[in-house]
Amino acid sequence: MPQQRFVTLTTDFGTSDHYVGTMKGVVYSINPAARVVDISHEVQSYDLLDGALTLAQAYSYFPADTIHVVVVDPGVGSARRPILARSEKYFFVAPDNGVLSLALEREERVHVHEISSEHYFLQPVSQTFHGRDIFAAVAGWLSKEVEFSKFGDEISDYVRFRMPAPKATEQGRTQGVVLKVDKFGNVVTNITPRDVPHLFDPQPPEFKIAIGKYEITSLRSSYAESAPGEVFGILGSMGFLEISINGGSAARTLDVHKGAEIVVSGKW
Amino acid sequence: MPQQRFVTLTTDFGTSDHYVGTMKGVVYSINPAARVVDISHEVQSYDLLDGALTLAQAYSYFPADTIHVVVVDPGVGSARRPILARSEKYFFVAPDNGVLSLALEREERVHVHEISSEHYFLQPVSQTFHGRDIFAAVAGWLSKEVEFSKFGDEISDYVRFRMPAPKATEQGRTQGVVLKVDKFGNVVTNITPRDVPHLFDPQPPEFKIAIGKYEITSLRSSYAESAPGEVFGILGSMGFLEISINGGSAARTLDVHKGAEIVVSGKW
Amino acid sequence: MPQQRFVTLTTDFGTSDHYVGTMKGVVYSINPAARVVDISHEVQSYDLLDGALTLAQAYSYFPADTIHVVVVDPGVGSARRPILARSEKYFFVAPDNGVLSLALEREERVHVHEISSEHYFLQPVSQTFHGRDIFAAVAGWLSKEVEFSKFGDEISDYVRFRMPAPKATEQGRTQGVVLKVDKFGNVVTNITPRDVPHLFDPQPPEFKIAIGKYEITSLRSSYAESAPGEVFGILGSMGFLEISINGGSAARTLDVHKGAEIVVSGKW
Repeated sequence: MPQQRFVTLTTDFGTSDHYVGTMKGVVYSINPAARVVDISHEVQSYDLLDGALTLAQAYSYFPADTIHVVVVDPGVGSARRPILARSEKYFFVAPDNGVLSLALEREERVHVHEISSEHYFLQPVSQTFHGRDIFAAVAGWLSKEVEFSKFGDEISDYVRFRMPAPKATEQGRTQGVVLKVDKFGNVVTNITPRDVPHLFDPQPPEFKIAIGKYEITSLRSSYAESAPGEVFGILGSMGFLEISINGGSAARTLDVHKGAEIVVSGKW
Repeated sequence: MPQQRFVTLTTDFGTSDHYVGTMKGVVYSINPAARVVDISHEVQSYDLLDGALTLAQAYSYFPADTIHVVVVDPGVGSARRPILARSEKYFFVAPDNGVLSLALEREERVHVHEISSEHYFLQPVSQTFHGRDIFAAVAGWLSKEVEFSKFGDEISDYVRFRMPAPKATEQGRTQGVVLKVDKFGNVVTNITPRDVPHLFDPQPPEFKIAIGKYEITSLRSSYAESAPGEVFGILGSMGFLEISINGGSAARTLDVHKGAEIVVSGKW
Repeated sequence: MPQQRFVTLTTDFGTSDHYVGTMKGVVYSINPAARVVDISHEVQSYDLLDGALTLAQAYSYFPADTIHVVVVDPGVGSARRPILARSEKYFFVAPDNGVLSLALEREERVHVHEISSEHYFLQPVSQTFHGRDIFAAVAGWLSKEVEFSKFGDEISDYVRFRMPAPKATEQGRTQGVVLKVDKFGNVVTNITPRDVPHLFDPQPPEFKIAIGKYEITSLRSSYAESAPGEVFGILGSMGFLEISINGGSAARTLDVHKGAEIVVSGKW
């Protein structure tokens, strides 16, 4: 019975070149029964946090044993190692640069192995396209249930980073940052209900959200609750405070980009 | 034998975020044998007519029993219902906002059900991403052949709209509108051969097509028939009058956008 | 046993319209067991060389018997023939305009047939969307193992072009051209190690690369070897000399576009 494991791809390769199609060809050549699914190929070029976030938002919705491949790889060709990770539920394949951090910190029983067995690479390995020659090839073999330990030794010193955490700067004042702007112009911050628990109370105390030159004093629990043109805060589907505008792009209206500061303050 | 039904996705989610990948994960987690196919994720944000048109142009080319999921959903989180539709040949899953109108008006024996059985939703249901928590999940279950009536009761008051119809404003004069501009810059109007039957005669009477500041007096039956740089009318593959230019973007040359007025007049 | 052949799609259709989804529907309606994979749909509009390059970089990574469909078709609706090609390893379906040239010149035992048997087309065949009515339909039938010769007679006068070749203009001086700019801004030229063999020596003689107003005297074997902001030449994963910049877009920095001239000169 052929192995029909799912393989997801998250990269910064875009879709205007042959890169992503080539990676799929490599997986299918090794295991025609694999099932490759795109998460996104429009991660910001070289942006590890953006890649980590994209993966973290999507990976847990896939079937058990899915192999998640992430290629955001500013250090391709350097000594940075390729790694494989195994959690209770999923596999992950990526360069050892931290791009798996946000997913792995949510997973149980994580084991990480260096990928050193060149036997599973396309030969010759190019210096510039490890997505094809290493990561897709390893994902193909892994989808055929090659034993995890055959790819290389377990390691514990793999690269990890934490998401930038909001800071409680003084009583009732929390300072965060814009993590990303989505396709609709929703401004996604790094602030969660844990950071400002009372903000999301059914009847929150008086509060304000300062971002750019704007102050927002309205919080909604759905887009539909807001008035046309209203700018408001909302607990988004990723679990973060987002700033949105009814029927438009909040990022454009507020002239806010990734990395911008946001301050929530309230009488709590 | 696993159910390998096709599930198509048509959304305004774009492909730069995790949204579409997440929806696919949800479908496959419920039914790993389903086969998810993208129609387009670049429907104009919140544009129900654009979503309806995109679906209507593609859906009928898929195998019988395909489940077409459309998520263009400006009212997400409001009281608008999620609905399921069944025609003789296909299934449809969408918010009840009319986005299925153009497909359903072409289908036979249409039955529409409200989706009310939360048993088939991801829990907890977010207020902002029903594409994941409701529509993808319902599509997954439907692809496993869960009985149609289990999702909720049949309804007849679902939202419908008609495509903007051309108007015969006086003898031999028909006024229409630009429905969309495609990737090549072809200007797709809402005018069909039924509206101006003689325009598409092998030897049409004298006519002119007014759009923006331009008057077009040339009609071609293929792009290849035209001269380089020529602006001409053509019966496009969607069944509408289109305005094209040989080797370039008619929309750019004519400075015409969606919603622009077009007038066809002729001696008929 | 259903035929699960792979069908790849390479087009200039973009993904904002229903075109690509419609083609997939056509393939699956004919052969639900086929497996359609995108190479890219962002070939430059009407650009045969760009389409040929995209295919040539990806096709050979797919499993044997994959059917590669390429639709870049400025002559749709004209007398240009649709063709099928069979090599030792792959099938190809495309308009007869040379878009298969770069792939076919690398393949062994190539046979090309005109596609004339309308029996395998969707009816009626539109004048503007042969991707749907001819190419996808033929790919669907071919994936069901319809015998190759049934589609039409073998021909030998199919259209071929060669990639623009670098010219050795004088001793130690080779003039090439920019083939494309990739998503990262890497500038891909048509110069290969065969054209300038000593450039890629471990210790190359003194050389310079002139492009636009810039002169580049640095060559790296990986991106990671370069310093931040450094502009350098590199042998890319496509087998061509590329010009890159560490952490940025070389095309933007050098203000270079497709078609620009590049001159490599050295003391060899």
